Amino acid sequence: MTISRSIALAMFVSLILLANKNSTAQNTNANKQKANPSLASYEKYIDEHMDAHQKEFIELVSIPSISSIPSYKPDAARTATWIVNKLKAIGITTAQLIPTEGNPVVYGSWDKAPGKPTVIIYGHYDVQPVTESEWDTPPFSPVLKDGKIFGRGASDDKGGIMTTIWAMETMLHNDGKLPVNVKFMFEGNEEVGSPYFKNFLEKNKDLLKADFALNADDGQYDENTPAITVSLRGSVTLEFLVKTANTDAHSGEFGGKTPNSALILAQIISSFYDKAGNVAVEGFYDKVIPISAQQKEMIKKIPYDPATDMKILGTTAEVGDPAYSPLERVWYRPTLEIVGMQSGYTAPEGHSNIIPGNAMARITCRLVNNQDGKEIIDLVVKHINKNCPAGAKVTYKYSNGYARPMVLPADTKEYRYISEVLSEIYGKQPFQYASGGSVGAMLSVKEVLGLYAYPLGFELSDEKWHAANEFFRVSSMRKGQLIYCLYLHYLADEESKLKK
Amino acid sequence: MTISRSIALAMFVSLILLANKNSTAQNTNANKQKANPSLASYEKYIDEHMDAHQKEFIELVSIPSISSIPSYKPDAARTATWIVNKLKAIGITTAQLIPTEGNPVVYGSWDKAPGKPTVIIYGHYDVQPVTESEWDTPPFSPVLKDGKIFGRGASDDKGGIMTTIWAMETMLHNDGKLPVNVKFMFEGNEEVGSPYFKNFLEKNKDLLKADFALNADDGQYDENTPAITVSLRGSVTLEFLVKTANTDAHSGEFGGKTPNSALILAQIISSFYDKAGNVAVEGFYDKVIPISAQQKEMIKKIPYDPATDMKILGTTAEVGDPAYSPLERVWYRPTLEIVGMQSGYTAPEGHSNIIPGNAMARITCRLVNNQDGKEIIDLVVKHINKNCPAGAKVTYKYSNGYARPMVLPADTKEYRYISEVLSEIYGKQPFQYASGGSVGAMLSVKEVLGLYAYPLGFELSDEKWHAANEFFRVSSMRKGQLIYCLYLHYLADEESKLKK
Repeated sequence: MTISRSIALAMFVSLILLANKNSTAQNTNANKQKANPSLASYEKYIDEHMDAHQKEFIELVSIPSISSIPSYKPDAARTATWIVNKLKAIGITTAQLIPTEGNPVVYGSWDKAPGKPTVIIYGHYDVQPVTESEWDTPPFSPVLKDGKIFGRGASDDKGGIMTTIWAMETMLHNDGKLPVNVKFMFEGNEEVGSPYFKNFLEKNKDLLKADFALNADDGQYDENTPAITVSLRGSVTLEFLVKTANTDAHSGEFGGKTPNSALILAQIISSFYDKAGNVAVEGFYDKVIPISAQQKEMIKKIPYDPATDMKILGTTAEVGDPAYSPLERVWYRPTLEIVGMQSGYTAPEGHSNIIPGNAMARITCRLVNNQDGKEIIDLVVKHINKNCPAGAKVTYKYSNGYARPMVLPADTKEYRYISEVLSEIYGKQPFQYASGGSVGAMLSVKEVLGLYAYPLGFELSDEKWHAANEFFRVSSMRKGQLIYCLYLHYLADEESKLKK
Repeated sequence: MTISRSIALAMFVSLILLANKNSTAQNTNANKQKANPSLASYEKYIDEHMDAHQKEFIELVSIPSISSIPSYKPDAARTATWIVNKLKAIGITTAQLIPTEGNPVVYGSWDKAPGKPTVIIYGHYDVQPVTESEWDTPPFSPVLKDGKIFGRGASDDKGGIMTTIWAMETMLHNDGKLPVNVKFMFEGNEEVGSPYFKNFLEKNKDLLKADFALNADDGQYDENTPAITVSLRGSVTLEFLVKTANTDAHSGEFGGKTPNSALILAQIISSFYDKAGNVAVEGFYDKVIPISAQQKEMIKKIPYDPATDMKILGTTAEVGDPAYSPLERVWYRPTLEIVGMQSGYTAPEGHSNIIPGNAMARITCRLVNNQDGKEIIDLVVKHINKNCPAGAKVTYKYSNGYARPMVLPADTKEYRYISEVLSEIYGKQPFQYASGGSVGAMLSVKEVLGLYAYPLGFELSDEKWHAANEFFRVSSMRKGQLIYCLYLHYLADEESKLKK
């Protein structure tokens, strides 16, 4: 299915023609030649440049911009510079790095549409770390296979960033201009909870002034079904180390009298949960608001099929408190997950008969409503200390950032613009959706810039974000670019109507 | 303190003089010149060759003969060949490798003492794996520091092997002969539970025929206090993998409905123990015999100080069922220890927000009395399967060897010979001791060769066996050699008295 054949473009025809008076592109499809010359020229440009774009995408994904490991800082800087150069190359008049306490933010601005609104687009170029051995192909040597580009960060969120940039490239090339003013802010510390982003926004408030904000780090329901995310969970992380001895001990010589750090860690981890699968940390749910009738209604409309969902991961059961449905649990309930755990001798081969002297775990909590990351971590730490037996000592490694939960109103024109464009392109109304994930920067955007950053991204839930073999679909590259082009035209048109 | 000054040699004088008629060594200590010329010459030889022996020991310890990792097989073979060459160099008439299903056994024999008894000495040249990052100096680049040689296997058991070989070298050099016939069997799979050793014994029964057996893989109470180990625990190992998904999952997108393998592993591990710290696996203690009055009496004689003991590891509490004393628990009660545990993203830096799709643990059980390794593993597997919830699947990696518990009688002449030599050298009676550790081959030696292999080794409990920064003391090299020399003379003398 190509988009040119599937979409109903009636409502866009006028604005597209209006916006592209100077278009000289030839359309080889005779049937459409009169109706939408510039859409066809966008498509033509996109298709003709698909190979080149894939090549440059592979170049970008090959840079390991891992934000949670300090030694990758130069790679993050290299990635940011790569994006600045790309912005300059396509004709974004201002493109530069803005330093932060962490990795720099890529800032771009095209402001040659006087009297038109300004849209600021958020994305992030940093990526999650990798466990190289679990990948079928090396995470930073991206490969294109079966219409998918495999590599760390391909979907989350380098694909999101590049989709918006390529859309601008397409319009600037075809029309010599954009339908509205556009700004970019691509940060480099999203995957560690955007600890420096709010400060960046405050320091650069004037520079970042805009009328609309978009979040390119989001997705659709599936390849053929659109969705608009109206709430995100927050997230906060913690690492802790249980230490029982200064050294590992011979399990024969000392086994029977010596505390085992691995056992104590396992016992602490077990104590995090009750039998129903809820978090047993005291006070954890105190600020969680009951799920509303409206939220339940929203979930009812989603054709959620546990079997299809479980197929993505190859799981054989769903877990969690049966008092809530799976989507209720993922969208509106907080979690505490063990994301990493290590103790003793764990090399792939060999067996070391030792009582480990220390054991480490990393956790991530997803938060909802008014839950505060710092408060939650305090509760978890209190719980661990309370459950740490004699003979063990726990030390903590706190992260300096956390993402706060976020809710976007669905009764705004901003929501409507996105909804209408998605409806046109996909041929069906988008689901009103929630995400169990987190984009910490979004609440800061609201607080500092006064804007709700509505999601417009093309990640899909099977694309293994954060896991091994992450990939982004070539079809999403194509569809995403076209949607960004049409959305900006539609926004310009609707806003000028409002002015009249 | 040098041994020459501290030991009372009265009872050995005659036999030493007898056994070393041809000794021409000069003794620089005028006081002792008449009393013990050949002991002095042994000491002289030992001291003069200390540097050379240390150098060759460093060479031996630098070969990574890890038996639990198949890729180290060539290193194990290299180690075995190195020892064969050393045996040949000192004049052991027969020295060769005997192949097994695993690493070869080093076999040696010196049989030029017709009419004298034959002593067979057991040791092992294989070593535990390492976690290199935890070592202060590289585990296979041994260094000498403060009278200690640091390196994997230095104490367990390359020090044990070399002590016996150097003792033979000293006697052969000084006397041109040994006081008894001596055989060696140094195996290369002790650290994986000696799976092939019984078969080796059976196949080579005639070759290995002897009157006395010694186990060089053992130690003393401390640097100044002797001990004879009369019981060893058995040991058996198991690795298991909890799998909940084919891949890791984004902790936001899937958190709340997706089973977490790390949590399930932690819950299974917690279920292994009851609140008193006993193993909660059904049937685990069924074959454990109550601790006898005699065993309790034995323990009473040991000046066990928990504080001193805890200092070795830097622990701050002792654990275990308070119904038993610490030594009772280590000597006569079985254990189940988590020796390794891994799940999710655990690289030293970085944080990956994933729900791990699999989680691995390795356990080691120490066994007592009639506990059978295979039976115990069956019980543990049954327990795990019973405690594995829906949504998870457990797979197992069994080891093909396990060490059986072993008891040595203390009312034998074999025990007495060792006890008397140790008493003389250390100036005090050895403790009758038990070990929480395991030397699986010893029961096979009894069953196949009909001999109790009494311990005569010089490892000390703070030498970090199996852990990082393992070391062996230079003082033990010296003392151990001298004791082996005197022991063989004493044995020859006592046995010839019995014949009269």
